[in-house]
Order: sequence, then structure tokens, then C-alpha cells
Amino acid sequence: MVTGMVAGRARMVVIGGDAAGMSAASQARRGKGPDLLEIVAFERGPDTSYSACGIPYWIGGLVTGRDALIARTPDVFRLRQQIDVRTRTLVDAIDTTAREVRVTELDTGRQYSERYDDLVIATGSVPVTPPIPGSDGSDLNGVFAVHGLGDGERIRTHLETGRIASAVVVGAGYVGLETAEALMARGVAVTVLDHAAAPMTTLDPDMSEHVATAIKESGLGLILGDGLAELVPDDSGRVRAVRTTSGRRLDAELVILALGVRPEVALAEKAGIPLGPTGAIVVDRRMRTDTPGVWAAGDCVESTHLLSGRPVNVALGTHANKQGRVAGENIGGGYAAFPGVLGTAATKVCRTEVARTGLSTREASEAGFGVVSVVVESTTRAGYYPDAAAIRVKLIAERGTGRMLGGQIVGYEESAKRIDILATAIWNGMTAQEFFFADLSYAPPYSPVLDPVVIAARQLHDAVRRDLPQGLE
Amino acid sequence: MVTGMVAGRARMVVIGGDAAGMSAASQARRGKGPDLLEIVAFERGPDTSYSACGIPYWIGGLVTGRDALIARTPDVFRLRQQIDVRTRTLVDAIDTTAREVRVTELDTGRQYSERYDDLVIATGSVPVTPPIPGSDGSDLNGVFAVHGLGDGERIRTHLETGRIASAVVVGAGYVGLETAEALMARGVAVTVLDHAAAPMTTLDPDMSEHVATAIKESGLGLILGDGLAELVPDDSGRVRAVRTTSGRRLDAELVILALGVRPEVALAEKAGIPLGPTGAIVVDRRMRTDTPGVWAAGDCVESTHLLSGRPVNVALGTHANKQGRVAGENIGGGYAAFPGVLGTAATKVCRTEVARTGLSTREASEAGFGVVSVVVESTTRAGYYPDAAAIRVKLIAERGTGRMLGGQIVGYEESAKRIDILATAIWNGMTAQEFFFADLSYAPPYSPVLDPVVIAARQLHDAVRRDLPQGLE
Repeated sequence: MVTGMVAGRARMVVIGGDAAGMSAASQARRGKGPDLLEIVAFERGPDTSYSACGIPYWIGGLVTGRDALIARTPDVFRLRQQIDVRTRTLVDAIDTTAREVRVTELDTGRQYSERYDDLVIATGSVPVTPPIPGSDGSDLNGVFAVHGLGDGERIRTHLETGRIASAVVVGAGYVGLETAEALMARGVAVTVLDHAAAPMTTLDPDMSEHVATAIKESGLGLILGDGLAELVPDDSGRVRAVRTTSGRRLDAELVILALGVRPEVALAEKAGIPLGPTGAIVVDRRMRTDTPGVWAAGDCVESTHLLSGRPVNVALGTHANKQGRVAGENIGGGYAAFPGVLGTAATKVCRTEVARTGLSTREASEAGFGVVSVVVESTTRAGYYPDAAAIRVKLIAERGTGRMLGGQIVGYEESAKRIDILATAIWNGMTAQEFFFADLSYAPPYSPVLDPVVIAARQLHDAVRRDLPQGLE
Repeated sequence: MVTGMVAGRARMVVIGGDAAGMSAASQARRGKGPDLLEIVAFERGPDTSYSACGIPYWIGGLVTGRDALIARTPDVFRLRQQIDVRTRTLVDAIDTTAREVRVTELDTGRQYSERYDDLVIATGSVPVTPPIPGSDGSDLNGVFAVHGLGDGERIRTHLETGRIASAVVVGAGYVGLETAEALMARGVAVTVLDHAAAPMTTLDPDMSEHVATAIKESGLGLILGDGLAELVPDDSGRVRAVRTTSGRRLDAELVILALGVRPEVALAEKAGIPLGPTGAIVVDRRMRTDTPGVWAAGDCVESTHLLSGRPVNVALGTHANKQGRVAGENIGGGYAAFPGVLGTAATKVCRTEVARTGLSTREASEAGFGVVSVVVESTTRAGYYPDAAAIRVKLIAERGTGRMLGGQIVGYEESAKRIDILATAIWNGMTAQEFFFADLSYAPPYSPVLDPVVIAARQLHDAVRRDLPQGLE
């Protein structure tokens, strides 16, 4: 028997102490007390359960301290839930036959193995780095991803010690834009660079163009259709500028690489746990991999997109939290299943709120849907009410049936949260007409008599009808 | 043939030129052009399609002009849609056998009849008045309802000419509280009086108590468990005070009666068109009364509550708008059906946002449901994000099944709109567990990693499970 194991107790081992891993541990603990289940969680870094999504706001100074981003410290898990959290401990390998993991304590170098009955792989994701020297931040000072709390700390230090006047953010997605805004708030002249023709390519072009306008109006520089070609250092090994693929040179004493993430699956892959077409770990609805006793959750797994039916890899704290809970519920002796995702997401670019759910027009077409769509401009409050702000809603439906497939919102204050109304409607397979008749609230401070999303549904229903061949209506 | 009728054209007559009536007229016109359908709309007042819900904000000065509250003037209907709107015209009677209405032009006294093929009764509602002398405003100056634009005008005039220092608002429902806040914004000392033990009795007591706290903290006086007994005039016939049922005397140079509304069904009743148990006109899903050629829509009809299955009479612009559209679609040769209501509503009391949907605990019990509920306190944004505000969410589910039956929200900025997420979930019959897994958005400016409504769903699911008899889980 492996040292430390008590006879009769099962042991759950978790790899990764962030949202997915610690949700799994917590939920398993709720199902089985310490007398029945021993829980060990390994985390490479010093922290557990932190908000990666909050890092841009910490950089920008909206969030005051690093600690504010930590939802629960290791000690809270240890003391309140008897979860044996071992931080600064790297898992080197998984042996699925012996059912054990081999780990290294980073501070002491000590190596040991730990047996498991159930293993949860919650290794998360790693930032995508371009194939450009210096882009991994190791040999060039001033080049950062925005991924872990450590990145946030390094960027803050760089800002505080460096008198940074200019920065380039590579990637005009959610994290890139949030970070660009944060840097601008710190007095830095920021240019956002993206090889795509529009920012936030998860939106349709007729919606993302309004995001582009908002970015420019906010005072951020925006260069589209151009990518990062070279990081230009000064003599001391600090970044000084970037050169773009079109040959432009942009001053940059700070470069943020926000090119998205890819699932961290090295451990799983080495252990022979199957990956799917997205490169992430394949799991079933209960978050089981195909290897006995091995579960996975969070950024490192594939989910099913509920509209396309296809596997997708979505790195989001909400999914990680829920998937972890599902794995933990099942390990703890209960039953839970993660149904899949719709691709709901939201962000804020200065005053402009942006959100999307379901399939974009392109995604819907790729998934084989014939689509009809409408765009509606309205206001967030009754038109006559003070501070009624502009909101633009795009809705996409399947031809013929009118089933709603996607929604996109760009607007000012109090716009974005409406995406959850659309997400819930789409989740339930509602047609535009059914959604039009749903009993949504109305009061002048909150919407026109018909909410913009309801007006959009009405117009979408009409558009679906008009789209029918004559005589089939 | 009746004068003015063109051979071969059908004629639609509408009684009531507000949301329901004009939506019906507009939608019928979209189905059939002027060559096929003549549309005549009678309206007692001078306006069409105005926002009654906006009147409190007009009184308070948030909305600048009367015109801002009028969505579409009679001329717009006449010129753009060839709808023959006849304002200041009272319909005196409906003859369902001859299929005609008898009307009086209020300004000329001229009376005439108009034949119809299809008639839409959209007579709306009238304010409930207590059985107290002077409460109908006719013989006592300074006593008003807040129902039509005329009421708004009279209250504004009274405020502007009267140097009003104190007011009593009778009724602590939505309109009462909105108007109380408006008067306070005009510098009036306002006391809200309600015979119930809590304001907004459509909420459960454990939620409405927080509304009561918000009312008091806002600077409004609030007297509960006490009602209006007497309106006390001065020598000139202006109200000076009110006396309450408990004998209290409250100074009031202005009294607002906000005791709710009842359906305006006198015309329908006289014509023998059946009313239901709520006192409103009975219609089917297509908005047909049981009388051939007679339709009804808006505040004057009964709807089906989708959870209780019972008839309810809900006076709300959204329903009026949709029901009118349904009647018009059917009259215009199409097919549409109004599915029913959930009882979704929202309002704002100073900084506090209040919203509800579905059944309250009492309503659910009355409808025969066994219920389980939870209350969750959370924040509108990530806890570390600036301006994260307190929000309290109550969720109610059916015992055993976990099907969500109701939601209630009391919180600060950006709280209320979340009721529409819950309304959409409940509309679709989701269980707490299903809703917990729905793919809702997350970004720190908009919610914690799990939105308060999602946290509530998780706790509700757990509560439903705990509530099961041992061994049945």
C-alpha cells in the first residue's frame, strides 16, 4: 500500500488547482467526507482558484490587489474541506496502469508518486505563441501573455519600473482588447494589431465593424489585416518595437501577445489518454476520459457544441467550474452530466459592451445550416428615458424552421447581459416566433415596451417567413 | 350598404387607440392593403399609442415632454398605414347582431354607426378607486390616478401651480412607488400608504421586506398595514390631508391613488360578450371572443397563466402589444396565437431594482404546487470589479421535479434585467439543474464567474434534492 493511504478510503487526485480542479475537489467532498475519500490536489503555481479573467482589470488598476482575484486560497480548501492542496508541485507523469501520478516539489526538488482511484486532469490551457523569436517572453524583456497571475504581476512590474510610453497588443480578441484598455488606463499609447480583417472574429463582420469603431473612438490604435513579424529589442534585451508582416514598424516598450490559448494536454497525451480533433481531451457527458478512473475538466477538454453537434474547445471559467462540478459529483457518488456549450461570451471595450451566443453566420453555414438573419438598432431603455443608450442586436435563425441559432449584441451600458436571455432561448431550441411571445419584463428604465431582443425576434420571424418560397408559407 | 363602405372591401373596426388596438390595426394592415381591408380605429382621447408606463417619469421630470411618451401619433397611422384613426370619439355600444358600433364624436356631439366585419375591443383598463368620497377626482381637487396622459398633465399642473409640500400615495405597487419617487424628485415630501404588510405583494415577504427597506432609505415615508379612510379637503375643495383606517392623519396637498386597475369591459358586457372569472373578456389563443367577428386584446382580456393554468388579467403594455399583433395577424389573413403569460414584471425604486416572474410562493401553493425555494445574495459584477453591487435572487421550484416556478430579484444597478433570463428558463419548463448548466455569459464587468441566477439555480437544485424523502433520491 502506498504511504499515506488509509485502508478503506478511496483517493481522488486532482491535477490543477484552478476553477475546474478545485470545483471537482469541492463537489466530490460534498458527496463523500474525509472518512470515505481522501482528496489531493496538485498545483504548479502558488495559488488556487484565481480569476484569470480579472487580470486585465488588475493591470489597469480597476482591481486593487492580486489577492482580490483569488476566490479561495489553498488554506481555505485545506481547513474547511480537508482537501490536501499541494501548491508549487508539478505533476510530471500519469501512469494509468498503476493508477498513480509522479510529481516534483518545485521548491525542494523532491519527487514522489501518489496513487489514485480517481484522477481529474484539470491542466487548463497555455497561451498560443507565434513562431517568432522572443515571443515566449524567455529571452526578451517586455513581452508577455495575459494568462496567469504571474503574467499580471510581471506586466504590472514592467509598467511600474519601465516608464512605458507605448505598447502593442497582438490579437484583437477578448483578452487583447481588455488588456489594451487596461494599458491605456495606465497612460500607455496602445496599438492593437490583428491579422484578421476585424476585431472579435467570433462576431459577424457587420457586428464586429461596430466594435472596430468603438475601439478607435476609445483612443486605442487598431491595425487590422496585419500581423506580428518581428520583435525588435534594444541593446539591453528589452523590446523596443514590433515589425508587422506588411513591414510597418510600431514603437512598443511593452508587447502583449493575446493570440488565444490552446489546451494544455501534454501530460494526458503522454499517458495515452485520447485527444479529439480540437486537440483537447475527449470526455463524455460525465467528464470521463476513455481511460478507467481518469476524468478531465476545464480548458483542457473538448465539449460538444449543442447546435453544430461538433466538438469544440472553449476556455472559459464558467465551463471549467461546471465541468469540475460534474466530475466531482460523479466521483463523489452522485450523478451529473455536462450537456455541452453554445459559445456564449461577453466582454467590454471601454464603454462598448459586446456579447455573442450560439453560431455566427459563418459557423452556422459551416455546420450545414441555411440561415436567415436580422440586425436591429434600438435602445437599452425606453427611448424617452434618460440615458437610453444605443444597442444593436443581430439574430440568426435556421431557414424554414425559424429556430434561433445565434445572437450578437454590440451596445452601450446594460446591453451585454441580454445575451443570456438569447442564450437561454437558444439553449431551449426556441424559434424566433416562440421567443417573441415569451413573457419578458418591461419597465421604462430597462427597455422599450418590446425589448431590443424581442424586436429582433419579431423581425427575424418575419424574415424567415419572407424567405420561404412562394406558396410554402 | 353603409355609407363609406367600398364594395368588396372588408372593414375592421378597432375600439381603443393604444398599444393593443393600434398593434392590431397595424398588423392587420401588414396582412391586407387598403384595397382589401378598410381599418377604422376609435379612440376616446386625443392620442394614440402612448406609454402609460412613462407617466411617472414625466411627472418626475426625467422625461421632458408629453410628446416623448407618444410612440405614434394618429397622423402617422393615417398617412403611413391608411388607418382611419378617429380620436375624441366614444364608442357607445356594440351591436353584435348587426355587426356595427354606435359612436359619438365628443367635440361635435354627432352620433353615427359604423359597420364591421371584424371588431377588436381594446378598451384597456380603468384605475381602481376606493369607495371614498372624492376618490374619483371629480369633486376634490388634488386627487389623481396615474393612468392616462391626462392624469399626468393634471398632476404636473397641480404641482406647478400649487406649491405642493406633501403628498400621500395610496398603494405601494409598481405605479405607486414609481410615482412616489417622481414626486420626491420634485421636492415633495411623500408618504406611501398601503393596507398590506409589505410593498409589492407580488413578491414573497422575504423579498419585499428589502424593497421596504429601500423605500425608507430613499427618503420616502412608508406606512404599511394601514389604508385610506378619508380624504380631507380645505374650504376651497382642495385636498389637505388623508385620514387612515387606523385613525392617523397625514398632510397631503396631493393624493395619488395607485390601487391598481381593473379591465374596462362595460361595452363588451353590455353587448353580451362573455367575461371570465377575473372580470375580463374571455378570448382564445387567437384573441377571438366567443362572438363571431369580435376579437379583444390588451388590458381588457384574460390570459392564461402558463404555470397555474388559470385565467389571469394582467395589464401590461408588452402583452397588449403582442395580443394586438396576434388579433391583427389573424384578421389580416395570417395565423398567430398568444400562448399565455408568466407574470413577469420589473420596476425601479430609486436605486433599487425589483423584478419577478412566474409564481410567488403563495401563488404556487394556491395553484397546488409543493415548493422548495432558495435566496442567494451575490453581486452584479465580479466581486473584485468596481461598482459590483448587491443583488438578491430568490428562486422557487416544484418539489420533487425541480422545475422552476418563479424568480424574484431585488438589487442595485443592472440587477432587474436578469429576470428575463429566468423568465425564458421558466417559460421553457427548465429544471433548476438544467438551468444551472445553460451556457450563460461571463465577464467580470457583468457577473461573478457564475451569475447570481446560476448560483441560485445550483442551490435550488441542491435544496430540491435535500427535500426528497430519504431513499428516493
